[in-house]
Amino acid sequence: MITRRTFIQKTSVTAASLPFLSHTLPYFENTTLHTQSGVLKVALMGLGSYANRVAKAMETCTRAKLVGVISGTPSKIEEWKNRYDLPEKNCYSYENYSEIESNKDIDAVYIITPNGLHCEQTLKVARAGKHVICEKPMAVNAKEARQMVDACEAAGVQLLIGYRMHFEPKTLEAIQLRTSGQLGTPLFFQGLSGFRIGDPNQWRLNKALAGGGAMMDIGIYSVNGARYMLGEEPIWVSAQETKTDPIKFKEGVDETIQFQMGFPSGAIASCLSTYSMNDLDRFYLNGTQGHIEMKPSTGYGPIQGKSHLGPLTAPVVTHQTVQMDAMAGILLHNESPIVPVDGKEGLKDMIIIDALYEAVKTEKKVALPPLTSI
Amino acid sequence: MITRRTFIQKTSVTAASLPFLSHTLPYFENTTLHTQSGVLKVALMGLGSYANRVAKAMETCTRAKLVGVISGTPSKIEEWKNRYDLPEKNCYSYENYSEIESNKDIDAVYIITPNGLHCEQTLKVARAGKHVICEKPMAVNAKEARQMVDACEAAGVQLLIGYRMHFEPKTLEAIQLRTSGQLGTPLFFQGLSGFRIGDPNQWRLNKALAGGGAMMDIGIYSVNGARYMLGEEPIWVSAQETKTDPIKFKEGVDETIQFQMGFPSGAIASCLSTYSMNDLDRFYLNGTQGHIEMKPSTGYGPIQGKSHLGPLTAPVVTHQTVQMDAMAGILLHNESPIVPVDGKEGLKDMIIIDALYEAVKTEKKVALPPLTSI
Repeated sequence: MITRRTFIQKTSVTAASLPFLSHTLPYFENTTLHTQSGVLKVALMGLGSYANRVAKAMETCTRAKLVGVISGTPSKIEEWKNRYDLPEKNCYSYENYSEIESNKDIDAVYIITPNGLHCEQTLKVARAGKHVICEKPMAVNAKEARQMVDACEAAGVQLLIGYRMHFEPKTLEAIQLRTSGQLGTPLFFQGLSGFRIGDPNQWRLNKALAGGGAMMDIGIYSVNGARYMLGEEPIWVSAQETKTDPIKFKEGVDETIQFQMGFPSGAIASCLSTYSMNDLDRFYLNGTQGHIEMKPSTGYGPIQGKSHLGPLTAPVVTHQTVQMDAMAGILLHNESPIVPVDGKEGLKDMIIIDALYEAVKTEKKVALPPLTSI
Repeated sequence: MITRRTFIQKTSVTAASLPFLSHTLPYFENTTLHTQSGVLKVALMGLGSYANRVAKAMETCTRAKLVGVISGTPSKIEEWKNRYDLPEKNCYSYENYSEIESNKDIDAVYIITPNGLHCEQTLKVARAGKHVICEKPMAVNAKEARQMVDACEAAGVQLLIGYRMHFEPKTLEAIQLRTSGQLGTPLFFQGLSGFRIGDPNQWRLNKALAGGGAMMDIGIYSVNGARYMLGEEPIWVSAQETKTDPIKFKEGVDETIQFQMGFPSGAIASCLSTYSMNDLDRFYLNGTQGHIEMKPSTGYGPIQGKSHLGPLTAPVVTHQTVQMDAMAGILLHNESPIVPVDGKEGLKDMIIIDALYEAVKTEKKVALPPLTSI
């Protein structure tokens, strides 16, 4: 069994740099800053399949707890109330969830609805004075994302984006290999993000609800991954779209986009976003002194990876359990994650995705605004 | 030991489709067409390190034999004469090699000189009535390549390009997996071709002699590989250049180019050509029913690969031995290789490379002329 101690010994990192593991300790060892209750009390908004996965994962959280739901479907609310023993007073509809403002038993709302609804819902939750955790992509474009960041700031609540990979141990081990210099200077990142999508009638293939196609849903993993694997912000993008099935993938819903990014150091990224291929989900990072391959790199199941030094050895965890405990640490105890998950982190990805869609349209390289000053 | 029979059984292909293996049989079993001597008598032009590798590999050829050399360095000629027991009358300088016309002991000249010299030298060898084997890239642009194809046709000699991978058993096994339908419809090819180049004063970094940089030398493997792995000709390209060291990589000498290709079926290719990274040399082919990864995919050493069905099992060979025996079959016995190696095959790559350089310059997608009609 890999204990926290042996893991830390193996990866030669300090406990302080491993907040994602802090949930294995009593939370109050980690901070003296918690002014609210010791456990983050979360309501989930949108009770689709991913919400089910998050709720199940939260059953083993030590610092976060599912306490309520927001849904448009009364039968789902009934089902969840029974399954998770939720009090009636913590269950809301889309019509009345502003009333959450007066509910002291809820600290944060995790929005897991279609992308096109995130902005409006985030604004409403912020106005109700609750912290927002918003699933990725945080919005359908940078304009909305900016609005969300501003609204949460104005309301004095925090906005976090559901970047579960930012807390995944092998991902952090890979990042640690880079930051410790063991790869030398990073030169090249390759990200393959995609799967063959099924049901043509799902909201993910509806422009109004999804804001786009594969890029919004799965390509964003390579956009975001390029940034945390290289440890830099891109300065330009280029992109090429391919559509083989215009009936399934309608106007504005991208099936396959190849895209490239350039970084200030001269490092480059080459990525694929697709809804029409399986056996992808691979990250590769090449540096002057070594390299890392992760495959699968962002799926829900165990992440696997190897570097020029050997296999990555950080423990297998349930991503959403670790994510929610870590987010409790951020929201309640002012902890800082190794890779940010705040609204500005999400905004950067939305700015890049806007530029990618522009590059597809114009078939030209698109310069990015300075992302480091956001 | 893997015999020819067990290999054929394993890969379920017929002997007729495996001309690259025919060197293991007495050559006259394979054909009744040979009108010239049974063994291809070859002179090597340009005695650099790759010529040394070819000459050494040819020692175990059964259908091709090194019989002469052309070099500008008398001491090298002396050394080679002794090492390979070459008669004086088969050794030429760059001044007098037109005289090869009257030398009945030479069938073909293998040109292994800097790229910028290939066109002129090919024209001269063709005029002397000898078959030309020209190392890749066949020229520095498509205009020169066309001239070479036309000149050889006019002179009634054959022109082959040194595409050694076209005879490499695991490469052919991968192609066989595609053509037999075991991958389903090919969707995506990824090619990584590169290495960190050393000596800044070598001819490969001289625009006049190399015609470009990494793309000409190593990127061409991904250009060519995309075509034989997908089994289609591209219709567009896009490309992005990155230069981190403008002193080593001068104007017109590309260090790193990311490039993409689109194909009529909707398949796409995403490739990297670089002189500044190690641990590349990887091909990946994704189809609706399966996938293949080859790594290394084009290096001189043993090629390794695996598909969704398991490891590729075709035998390890010395590439240049197999190439030269197969080329003897083409030039003397009218054999047809599975993947062409003629001048038109080379011309297609040069047309694509011209378009890639244009795409780098214009930062726009470039449409290709129809390559299938060449």
